Amino acid sequence: MQYMKKLQEELAVDKDVINKMLKPKSVAVVGASATPGKIGYAVVKNLLKDGYKGAIYPINQKEKEILGLKCYAKIQDVPGEIDSAIMCVPADAMKEVTIECGKKGVKGLIVITSGFSEVGRKDLEDEIVSIAHSYGMRVLGPNIVGSLSNSDQFNGSFAPCLPLPGKASLITQSGALLIALDMATYTRRVGFDKLVSIGNMADVDFADLIEWFNEDEDTSCVSLYVEGLRDGRKFMDAARNSKKPIIALKSGVSAHGAAAAASHTGSLAGAAKIYGSAFKQAAVIQASDLNNLFDRTLALSVQPPMKGDHMLILTNGGGVGVLATDAAEKYGVPLQFAPPEVQAEMKKHMPEFGSAKNPVDMTGMAGNEWYYETVKYSLTNEWVDSLVVLYCETAMTNPTEIADSIKRAVDESGIKDKPITVSFVGGEKSDKAMGWLVEHGIPAYFAPDVAVNTMAALREYAILQENKKSDGMKADEKARKIALEIIDGARKDGRSSLTEIEAKKVFEAYGLKTTKIGLAKSEDEAVKLATEIGFPIVMKIVSPDILHKSDAGGVKVNIKDEAGVREAYNTILKNARSYKADADIHGIAVQEMAPWGTEVILGSVNDPTFGPTVMFGLGGIFVEVLKDVTFRVTPVSRAEAQQMINEIKSAAILAGTRGEAPKDRKAMAETIVHYSSMILDLKDEIAESDANPVLLYEEGQGLRVADARIILKKK
Amino acid sequence: MQYMKKLQEELAVDKDVINKMLKPKSVAVVGASATPGKIGYAVVKNLLKDGYKGAIYPINQKEKEILGLKCYAKIQDVPGEIDSAIMCVPADAMKEVTIECGKKGVKGLIVITSGFSEVGRKDLEDEIVSIAHSYGMRVLGPNIVGSLSNSDQFNGSFAPCLPLPGKASLITQSGALLIALDMATYTRRVGFDKLVSIGNMADVDFADLIEWFNEDEDTSCVSLYVEGLRDGRKFMDAARNSKKPIIALKSGVSAHGAAAAASHTGSLAGAAKIYGSAFKQAAVIQASDLNNLFDRTLALSVQPPMKGDHMLILTNGGGVGVLATDAAEKYGVPLQFAPPEVQAEMKKHMPEFGSAKNPVDMTGMAGNEWYYETVKYSLTNEWVDSLVVLYCETAMTNPTEIADSIKRAVDESGIKDKPITVSFVGGEKSDKAMGWLVEHGIPAYFAPDVAVNTMAALREYAILQENKKSDGMKADEKARKIALEIIDGARKDGRSSLTEIEAKKVFEAYGLKTTKIGLAKSEDEAVKLATEIGFPIVMKIVSPDILHKSDAGGVKVNIKDEAGVREAYNTILKNARSYKADADIHGIAVQEMAPWGTEVILGSVNDPTFGPTVMFGLGGIFVEVLKDVTFRVTPVSRAEAQQMINEIKSAAILAGTRGEAPKDRKAMAETIVHYSSMILDLKDEIAESDANPVLLYEEGQGLRVADARIILKKK
Repeated sequence: MQYMKKLQEELAVDKDVINKMLKPKSVAVVGASATPGKIGYAVVKNLLKDGYKGAIYPINQKEKEILGLKCYAKIQDVPGEIDSAIMCVPADAMKEVTIECGKKGVKGLIVITSGFSEVGRKDLEDEIVSIAHSYGMRVLGPNIVGSLSNSDQFNGSFAPCLPLPGKASLITQSGALLIALDMATYTRRVGFDKLVSIGNMADVDFADLIEWFNEDEDTSCVSLYVEGLRDGRKFMDAARNSKKPIIALKSGVSAHGAAAAASHTGSLAGAAKIYGSAFKQAAVIQASDLNNLFDRTLALSVQPPMKGDHMLILTNGGGVGVLATDAAEKYGVPLQFAPPEVQAEMKKHMPEFGSAKNPVDMTGMAGNEWYYETVKYSLTNEWVDSLVVLYCETAMTNPTEIADSIKRAVDESGIKDKPITVSFVGGEKSDKAMGWLVEHGIPAYFAPDVAVNTMAALREYAILQENKKSDGMKADEKARKIALEIIDGARKDGRSSLTEIEAKKVFEAYGLKTTKIGLAKSEDEAVKLATEIGFPIVMKIVSPDILHKSDAGGVKVNIKDEAGVREAYNTILKNARSYKADADIHGIAVQEMAPWGTEVILGSVNDPTFGPTVMFGLGGIFVEVLKDVTFRVTPVSRAEAQQMINEIKSAAILAGTRGEAPKDRKAMAETIVHYSSMILDLKDEIAESDANPVLLYEEGQGLRVADARIILKKK
Repeated sequence: MQYMKKLQEELAVDKDVINKMLKPKSVAVVGASATPGKIGYAVVKNLLKDGYKGAIYPINQKEKEILGLKCYAKIQDVPGEIDSAIMCVPADAMKEVTIECGKKGVKGLIVITSGFSEVGRKDLEDEIVSIAHSYGMRVLGPNIVGSLSNSDQFNGSFAPCLPLPGKASLITQSGALLIALDMATYTRRVGFDKLVSIGNMADVDFADLIEWFNEDEDTSCVSLYVEGLRDGRKFMDAARNSKKPIIALKSGVSAHGAAAAASHTGSLAGAAKIYGSAFKQAAVIQASDLNNLFDRTLALSVQPPMKGDHMLILTNGGGVGVLATDAAEKYGVPLQFAPPEVQAEMKKHMPEFGSAKNPVDMTGMAGNEWYYETVKYSLTNEWVDSLVVLYCETAMTNPTEIADSIKRAVDESGIKDKPITVSFVGGEKSDKAMGWLVEHGIPAYFAPDVAVNTMAALREYAILQENKKSDGMKADEKARKIALEIIDGARKDGRSSLTEIEAKKVFEAYGLKTTKIGLAKSEDEAVKLATEIGFPIVMKIVSPDILHKSDAGGVKVNIKDEAGVREAYNTILKNARSYKADADIHGIAVQEMAPWGTEVILGSVNDPTFGPTVMFGLGGIFVEVLKDVTFRVTPVSRAEAQQMINEIKSAAILAGTRGEAPKDRKAMAETIVHYSSMILDLKDEIAESDANPVLLYEEGQGLRVADARIILKKK
């Protein structure tokens, strides 16, 4: 929480700077050029051409005038204030002009210039940022196309035009994609207010912009093209706090794709699975591909979230109705049959052979009135949470009129909090009618499954919003103190890992239930410990030099009495010495022999992007063969822990299957929360850890961490 | 094989009839109308408007002339021959006019008329077909839009226009979709030669048309919109024999969707998983949705199959390159790095910071020449099996010129047997350039992942073609005789299932290895059997009245000697009698106690569409919890059996994991083939059967069917 507070304070200051950078009242083009074809020429031209109303100051030592604007040799020569400086100079000139901008009091630098970390010159990049910060300036880029804003008529980029106006805004890590998508907004009819190229993200990153867009009154939805994040947690915090839907297309999710991404940007693509979890935790909706990014952005930018599970499909064609129904199941919003009163009403607007169940098939006889009546009724019916309207163009109907009927029905229903999406399958007339619908705030798509897919995004948005209230554990100072003492002890011994006994003590401090264990340094101590713990017990060699205890004859199980303890103690010691004569033997662990339970695994990874991340899955073949595991970035809330337990493919095993009783999933969720708290709290100490196996018992019987492992971070 | 031969003979006769129906030299419109808005009017108008060159005979008792054409009161009044009669009369008039058409010698009936099985009047539908057949006529429909052919300028339908000309042909079960897609061919730029509405498939079905399209010189690829098939095996045979790619969009794959499909057509949608397997076995490529059907049809209709695994991606934008790379993995054609000589050549056409590995990122500096050079070189390089060319529109390049460079490079390479797909991301100029490419035979798409997805279809087509050579077992007359004797015996006893001993005898007859088992009717017989089989053994009660043998105390395992056999015999008998005093006890089974192995399951279902179908999976939680099973329609070839073993999610367990030896997958595949042969051969006798568990041993050690079950069909 401290971390977030600090972040919020920082962002409050920065937001004003970013505001001046991206919505400048005046702008300098540093490295402006009079030569067509040069970027410094294109930027000046674009500012003029697209109607920028603020002052434009081209900076160029040789020219007197560029495109009719007075040129200045140095930025200091500019008479007025400068909010934003667009940098088009070579990389090697950047230091000097950054200092000059700082001295002039420029607020933000839009650094189009490339030749920094993407070609290995990270030092120079860092230096520029550090100079900028010393003057209170923020840096967008470097290595970008620029920044565009329809509501400010500001094309501060070398992209050829402002995008089709709309309510969404896009942040992209690929400049080429920005230019291409910019032009594609017209052909694809998805409007944007702002397009921001973020490039190497040396300073301003996705999180900064998400925070800023949250306050931008011209943006209703933020779309992201993400190759890799620098600071995953900052991103998650910003996204979680966003009042506006965020949709991300993450590229580099394949092994080869991640390699390709790394080869052309300065950033490393993280493991796709962890990105997926982090996006979900931060209520970020994902797009499956570029078309899907456009399609979902359109719906999220103009339609409200879908707040319940009841989607109704209206259609004049059975075929597209079935395709939409299949899509509903595929995209996680399965259809339900409409209740009798809805069916009765629908029956009024179809021939005998129509179907009123859902999908509602009005048949090819459906005309303007039937569309109008069914749409209007459905929106006002309280069972209906959302509407997908499908239309197959016919020779007898006019797509323009159908579109008009739908729009009128929506308006006259007076309902504004239920989403609607549309698909017209047909020719040019249908296309035009869909264009008109989109202009009037109703998303319309070429294919029925896309109308359903985008509705699924609106449903997902509502669900993610509900889920994002986190109730993760607070940091536990007492536990932390115990853990740090143990860890320091191990570090003093020059060890990079804890023994099982030490690890279990750390686990116990954070409230995880482990099998009881103690270290015996003599036969008598072993007997004493065994009596305290209670028979039967397990005994194991404890030596940093013997990792494979069983191979060394260092493990004896099911010891039932004192005689057994004494015999085992001596045998294990003898075996260990003959396995490795000079082994440093700490003693022999005496451990509770926990009854058998379902084996589950908890693990932690320190993800380079998102930091401490919990892994959960069933043990044995489930993790080793089926890779049936799930991740959450810490801290993990109880609700998230429950999701983890329910979303693995083998979830049914924990729910109790084949006549077995359900397992204690409540205790499991609680354990995940505690484990998550531990690895987050000790993130500077623990490189990786696991609890493997955790023996999970029947409902009400709890669990036991049967083995624990902690590897320390190098210090 | 007999079945197929018979089919081929039938089809040879029919093909000529279908040819006359769909490419008529003369056509009658029965129920032609002079009233605009009527279907009988629209059909006549469409024939005229779209330039049909043959004779058109409107049939109408009241009119003298329709749209300038002489009208005939009855079909007999027509002076010339009639190839095709398009029926637009009400359902109740159909019988009479069908007889009249038959008498006149009409070849085919295109029955637009609805009101048959789709509204419960299957009897009438069957009667019409039977009348038609008695005159040697074939029936398309009923309940259809009609049939359209660009190459014949024949719009025999009430769809408003001929589709955009092209090389694909479409068969659709949804009429509304035909009309809508017809118009959409223009906006989506996917050309078709023929569109055929198949409706209720009372007579002519998908198989008939696939056979016919196989000979149609104007069709290079057949697209299907399938809601449900009537005869799955006939379809598979026709598809397997097709020399042209077939692509199917199967709707009704969700539970709710299947219900929706059933409500609006006369046919039942089959289980999606079995459809998926059957399509694969018949070399039919699937489309995931309507857009995908268009996209893949385009590629398959104009590009050759991709014959190897090496796909090379060329791009001027890193972002789209990464997206395409992700898509390559997602769609099963993962990228590999290009070999050094290819990289060396590519390096010549990019700046220092480009990447030559694959994707080949020429960067935003790529212009016409670099595209030309890289495309031309790549096509001629022998490592490259296919090319995906991506382009992000930039301000510095001209999409039209890039398109021209690509096309020139393809032409000048002289290579015709390697496929190429393209994606331009950009605005109107890019769209136009892509339109030009498509017109010139190069599929071009809005998004990079689509260019990859369609290339994956071309790869899949090549692979499915290679795989479709079936080497399934021949029918085994000797096995059949043994099986029928056993089955007849059971039927005579009034039983609907075989005992385990009987079932195992049937399995053994078809070459499956079962655990040895015999029936003892006395203590001495039991001892004799046990000695023959070899100790240890298992003994079980055999009684049609005791299904749950263990519950009845009717099972004893691990019996090691004669004394044990005698004791078990008496105990089991006593237990069984006290469990159910009047049970009909056949005796006690004495069975080999097979050593433990990995438990797998074979099962059979008699799919309503595809007939006998084999299911394979691992036992226990894998089938019960994870539903990790796979299907193949019989007969199953060795290659298909191997695919089944390799495609289950838990395949790694059979490959040997966690230090265990690989299992005997060869024996498993052989067993699948034999099992498949058995259930196909006995398809009229067996309703369902399973081998559960099959104990699978290490490589070279074979397997044992430890339990076998056969449920008989009701006769």
